[in-house]
Formats: sequence, C-alpha cells, structure tokens
Amino acid sequence: MSSKKISLQPPKGFRDFLPEEAQKRQYVYKKMIEVLNKYGFEPMETPALEYASVLEGKYGEEEKMIFKFEDRGGRKLALRFDQTVPMARYISRFQHDITFPFKRYQIQTAWRAEKPQAGRYREFTQCDADIIGVQSSLADAETIAVFSGILQNLGFKNYYIHFNNRKVLFKIIRASEIKKDLDLTVIRILDKIDKLGEEKTIEELKKAGIARTKVENLMQLLGKRPLLPKKRKGEVNLEEIEEITSHFESFNIPKKKVIFSPTLARGLDYYTGLIFEALIEGYEAGSVGGGGRYDNLLKIFSGKKIPAVGFAFGIDRVIEAMMQYQLFPEFITSTKVLVTIFNPEFIEYSTKLVTELRKQGIIAELYLKPLDKLAKQVKFADKKVIPYVIILGPDERENNLVTLKTLKTGKQETIPLEKAIETIQPK
Amino acid sequence: MSSKKISLQPPKGFRDFLPEEAQKRQYVYKKMIEVLNKYGFEPMETPALEYASVLEGKYGEEEKMIFKFEDRGGRKLALRFDQTVPMARYISRFQHDITFPFKRYQIQTAWRAEKPQAGRYREFTQCDADIIGVQSSLADAETIAVFSGILQNLGFKNYYIHFNNRKVLFKIIRASEIKKDLDLTVIRILDKIDKLGEEKTIEELKKAGIARTKVENLMQLLGKRPLLPKKRKGEVNLEEIEEITSHFESFNIPKKKVIFSPTLARGLDYYTGLIFEALIEGYEAGSVGGGGRYDNLLKIFSGKKIPAVGFAFGIDRVIEAMMQYQLFPEFITSTKVLVTIFNPEFIEYSTKLVTELRKQGIIAELYLKPLDKLAKQVKFADKKVIPYVIILGPDERENNLVTLKTLKTGKQETIPLEKAIETIQPK
Repeated sequence: MSSKKISLQPPKGFRDFLPEEAQKRQYVYKKMIEVLNKYGFEPMETPALEYASVLEGKYGEEEKMIFKFEDRGGRKLALRFDQTVPMARYISRFQHDITFPFKRYQIQTAWRAEKPQAGRYREFTQCDADIIGVQSSLADAETIAVFSGILQNLGFKNYYIHFNNRKVLFKIIRASEIKKDLDLTVIRILDKIDKLGEEKTIEELKKAGIARTKVENLMQLLGKRPLLPKKRKGEVNLEEIEEITSHFESFNIPKKKVIFSPTLARGLDYYTGLIFEALIEGYEAGSVGGGGRYDNLLKIFSGKKIPAVGFAFGIDRVIEAMMQYQLFPEFITSTKVLVTIFNPEFIEYSTKLVTELRKQGIIAELYLKPLDKLAKQVKFADKKVIPYVIILGPDERENNLVTLKTLKTGKQETIPLEKAIETIQPK
Repeated sequence: MSSKKISLQPPKGFRDFLPEEAQKRQYVYKKMIEVLNKYGFEPMETPALEYASVLEGKYGEEEKMIFKFEDRGGRKLALRFDQTVPMARYISRFQHDITFPFKRYQIQTAWRAEKPQAGRYREFTQCDADIIGVQSSLADAETIAVFSGILQNLGFKNYYIHFNNRKVLFKIIRASEIKKDLDLTVIRILDKIDKLGEEKTIEELKKAGIARTKVENLMQLLGKRPLLPKKRKGEVNLEEIEEITSHFESFNIPKKKVIFSPTLARGLDYYTGLIFEALIEGYEAGSVGGGGRYDNLLKIFSGKKIPAVGFAFGIDRVIEAMMQYQLFPEFITSTKVLVTIFNPEFIEYSTKLVTELRKQGIIAELYLKPLDKLAKQVKFADKKVIPYVIILGPDERENNLVTLKTLKTGKQETIPLEKAIETIQPK
C-alpha cells in the first residue's frame, strides 16, 4: 500500500455527507416515499451505468455533460444523466410484463460534468415519479396531487405550484402569428421571464428575430397571469386547463396553491402537454421540482406511443429550502443516552443495561473505552450532543438504581431504571 | 433524437430492478437501519467517483477490477470499489471535526469490473458499519452484537457467526514453525478450507512450499473447530478470544450463534485482529456478510493510527437467503384497494373517495382512464394483485354506501365506507 500524498478531498463537484447531512437526506426520502406509497407508486431501480448509446441523442445541448468512458472490453458506457431516459429504456424492456398504468418512483443519483459552482454539483440525487401508459386529465391532476402532497408532507406551508400546458403555449404562439419553427426558441425565452422581467423578455424575443407586432401580440395574449383567463373564442383553447382544474378539489389540492401561469415554459424539449413547477416563497434559488406530460419520449425505445406524465424533485434544493424554514426535526435518529463504564469491573453491568435500553427501543450508546475516566466519558456525550448520561457505580448497583445526568441542565438524580427511561423517552 | 436500434438491456453485469425486487431491497435497508440506529450508528455518504489515486494501491490483486477513466479535464477518476477505502479518506479528511469513537454506517453501491457470472454483479450494494477510533474487546463484541442483531431483525433463525482472531492465526502459524512471510499465503489457503475440505487444503499448503511436518503441525493446532479450545500454554494465546467471548452474554448475543472457528481466515489482507462472518444454514452461496478489526488501514490516509472494527453485508446474498427462507412479508407497500370509475360522471365522486382513503392512511389507487369499462378496471386490479376493488355507481351514491369486491373470493357487498375500511385495513 502506497503512503504518498493523496487528496483527502473528493473530486470537484462531488461531496462527502456528514452524518447530520446524511440524516437530512434520509428524512426527505422517507417523507417523499410515505406519500408516493399512499398513491400506489412503486419503487424501481436502474443501474448507474448504461450503454452510452442509450443516453446519446436525448438531451440536446446538455449531452456534452454526460460522463462517458470505454471499459476494458471496449464497450462505451455512460453514467446515468437523469432518471427519465433510463426509465424509458426500462419500460420498453419490460413493456410486456408491466401492467399499465404503471406508477413508479425512483430516488437515485445522477451525474453531470457541470462546471462546479454554487448549488451545482456533479453528483446529485433526484426523486422522480411518473404515471406511465395513460393519457387523461385525471392522471395529470393526480400527478399534481402527489407532487403537492409531498411538499405538504415535507412541512412546506408557503409553496406554490405553477402550471401551464404546452398546447396552450403553442396556441398562444400561433395566435400571435409567430412561425412554428420558432416555438422552442420562444419557450426557452419565456422560461426565463421571472428572472428577466417583461421588458427584457420582449427584447430577447425581438433579438430572436420576431417582429415587434408579433411580440406585442404574444405578450398581450399571455396576459398578466390571471388565475384562469377567460377563453377568447378562436384564439386560445383552454379546455385542457379547465379539465385538469376541475379535478383539483376532489384530490384535496388547496386551490390557492395551484396557479395557472400562461408564461410558464419549462426548459426541456420533450414536454407535450401539462407542465408545472414548485416554488417556495422566499427561497430564491429556483424551483425545487417540476414536471409535465411527455407523450412521445418513450416511443424512441419502445417503438410505440406510451403516454407519460411525471415530475422530479431536486433533493439538494429541497433540503436548502427546508433548512431555510427549519423544517427538519431537531433530533432525527441521534443517540438519546450514553451509558458510561464506572471502571472495568462494571463492564458487564453497564453492557447489560445498554442492551436492555436498546431492547426497549431507546437509541443508546455504550462508552467503549472502559479504562477512560468518568469525566472523559461525560465529555464525550457533551461533544456528541447526547442529551442524557447514565452512571452506574457501586452505590447504584447495590440499590438497584441508576444515576441519570441531564447534560443541558447538569441535573443529576439517582432513580429506578423505569423512571430514567420515562425521562429519556417520554411516552 | 435518434431512433436507431438501441439495446433495451443494461450492460452485462448490471441490473434493472422491478418494483417487487426494489421493495425487497428497501425492506432490507429499513430492517438494517432500525438496528444500526438503536446502537447509535449514524449514516454518512461518500461520492460514487473518487480520484483514482485514492483507490489505487489498496486492494492488491483485485485492483484490476476498478472502473477507471479520465474526465474531460484530464483528471483520473474511479468508481467506488468498496466503502471502506473511501470511508478511510473521509475519516482522515474530517478527523479534527469528528468525535471518536465514531460509529458510522453506509448503504451504497459499489462497482467492480468482474467477469459477469451467476451471483456476481458489476454493480452491487453493501451495508457497511464500523466503530472507528477505539481499540477494545468491548468494541469488538458490540460489533458482533449489532451484526447479530441485524440478522435477527431480518428474520434469520438459522444463522451462525463464525469468528476468529488474526493474531491467534498468526500465532498458530508461528507455532507450526511456518515462516512469517508465508502468513498471508497460508491465510488465503485456509480461507477456502470449507470449500476444499481438509485433504485438499493440506495439498494446497504443500504446493505453496510448506514442509509436510509443518503442515501437519498447523492442522493439528487448528484442531477440529472446538467451541473454545483449551489454551495450550506457550503455544497459542487465546486471551483476546476469551475477552471478547466474555462480553457476548451481556450484549444478549445468543451463545449458540457465535462459534469460535480457528480456521476462519477471511480473504482481505488488512485485518489485524478479530475476524468474523455469517453463514446461513442451508444457504450454500457463501457468507452473507463479514468483517473484522483493521487497525492499520486508516493510517495510509490520516498519517496516524486510528483503530477500527466493522463489517459489511452483501445485499444480494442477504436477499437470496431471505427468499430461500421466505422472510419477506407478502405485501410490503403494495396497493390495498382500487377505486373504479363507474362512468365519467362519477370522476369527482370516486376521486373524493380515493382522497379520503389516502387521508386515512390506506394505500389506494384511482383508475385513471374514466372511459374504460368496469370489467376492464376490475381486470387491472386482478393483474396487479390488488386485493380489493371499490365500485361507486348511482345506487351506492344514493344510499351513501360503497360496493366492496374481494378479488380472491369474488365476494361483493354493498356497505358503509367505514365498514369497507375495516375490511381493507383491519386495525
């Protein structure tokens, strides 16, 4: 084994997670899965490595960020870039075994060779959920219901789900007399309207070669984000918006939380209908998740049309926003009590006690260096922010009691074990 | 987007997991974490990619199986090969922030370019747990306690933990008058004694250049796996074995489950003391997990001695053994009831009901194609093995009742919702 200087840092854009961060991640996964389960979404997994040909030609511009390499056998492999494309391969592979509609979720890592910068990582985790094989506004509404349910279950009070429909957008663009081949250009510019503001958006549209009158038409038709703009006969067909909206109440989606946003565009090319994203008021980094309907993507693999609708949450942003609003419980799974060892003679006695505490469901640690002084043992608990310490010496053993020290207050009392347990873990 | 022929299979040695398999994996993780938490182990994470130099020179012979590549910036990166070496880097990186003893666990994926064969995958998940920064027989015993506790919590009744101590092995080899530089050769041969049998082991040892008399000495000293062989004065010092054994009872480790096995060797070079592994009676593929003490490994990164003891479970073998003994619950998180849609007029009524069921904690699915015939909807439930179906038509609505169909028996009854809930999810 070599002992030359090795970097203790992970590669740029990659992260180590300390226990506290790892616990937060686990907590978020748990809260998301609780909701997904209730709606009948099932977990599935795809491998980290795919044949490069599976990923190539699917992500447009971003494709250059795929981590690719050749293995010893000369096979071109690539690290998972997102969960949607591998899922499309998977669905196509198992299309004859799967009962549709298929509701699946995945919480996995993806890798992108992004330029490392604040909030952008080369390894990140997403929670994706999709309803595959059904094209109905009911499926669209249920997707928003589970999306909203997850935000609620994470504890967000001040979240808003903005939604739109690509078809509405396309029709608005058409009604503005802008040519079809500029559709995606317009969508990409509109996608940034929140950042740019109206004036700069108009400029950008003009720069893209769209005549002033057409840009004015477009902006007028987009209006100023009414909750549900009145249908202008012959201009824009809002039927799909009305249909999905009609289901919200039955799914118990709070009305105020779902906002029709005719300028919402979403960056990805493959959306064909509903699009949506979640914003947390006061959290400025951007949407914590989003999704939409994509009825043509799966055809690339399966050869036949398999409609789909779904979303992805970015775990990093979700955690950032939750931290901003202090939505994490103070102690998630941390140790409640440290059982000290009075001296080596007491190893057995203390070990039996810690075993009993664990049996009763209490997260308990045993101090594992029996030769250390008691003061050092208590200091360990203090450093690890363990709230209670149990001391067992000759007096305690003789009277069949335990001494319980509360570190926050310094209070120390010699009491029966049952009483100590009640204090450590109140029912 | 290209539509040329793309492989629907993942690369060789990589796997897709269908929902049932993914659920089993989640169940195993949950059961393991339950026990690890109770002992005060905390989660941590390291990235999938490391600088190649971090992994190189640590795995001996196996190193050629590391997935390595150069990124666009010319950095040599490598996929995680196990969790121990990245953990050693991590501990060294954070050694001044961590309070020792540090008890950590990790459930992550690792990658090895193995020759794909039955039961050998290029991507696999391990559950690692270690106690870092303490060298005591108490820590050794606690490691076996949590290892045993996990096996129990997974439902295994017929598991056995074989343990030994490298120091005992080395002393036995010394007492056999075999030279020190053959230590690891002897250990690697002894590691296969269960597969080879005694005769072939003797042959292999002779082939390795060890004189017949020395081989005979060795085999005699190793004895025939007594539970705890009597100390032979001056020959083999069994103090460490006796010390760890003395703690088992206090940790509530069933005596019969822990077997002292003087021939147990374990393949890895880095163990310095305790070694152990778990075998499931009747499961022939090999140990489902194992570990030991490695007091010198962390020095490579940190520059100073940080003792450590821990173990790893191989999730694939654990699942195989659990399936052999049917230790998985029949329904883990599957849908309990399908709410059908009588006709499009009933969309709202059915949606409200499914929302109510979910609110009451029942995993409920709504049939998402309102135009499909009722028979088709029931068939969907049947195919997905959903046990109950709720039908809501004009009669049910008028009388404020629901029709509950039990698919297994075909029984159908029109009853109040509360009664239906009691049947679907008995308290």
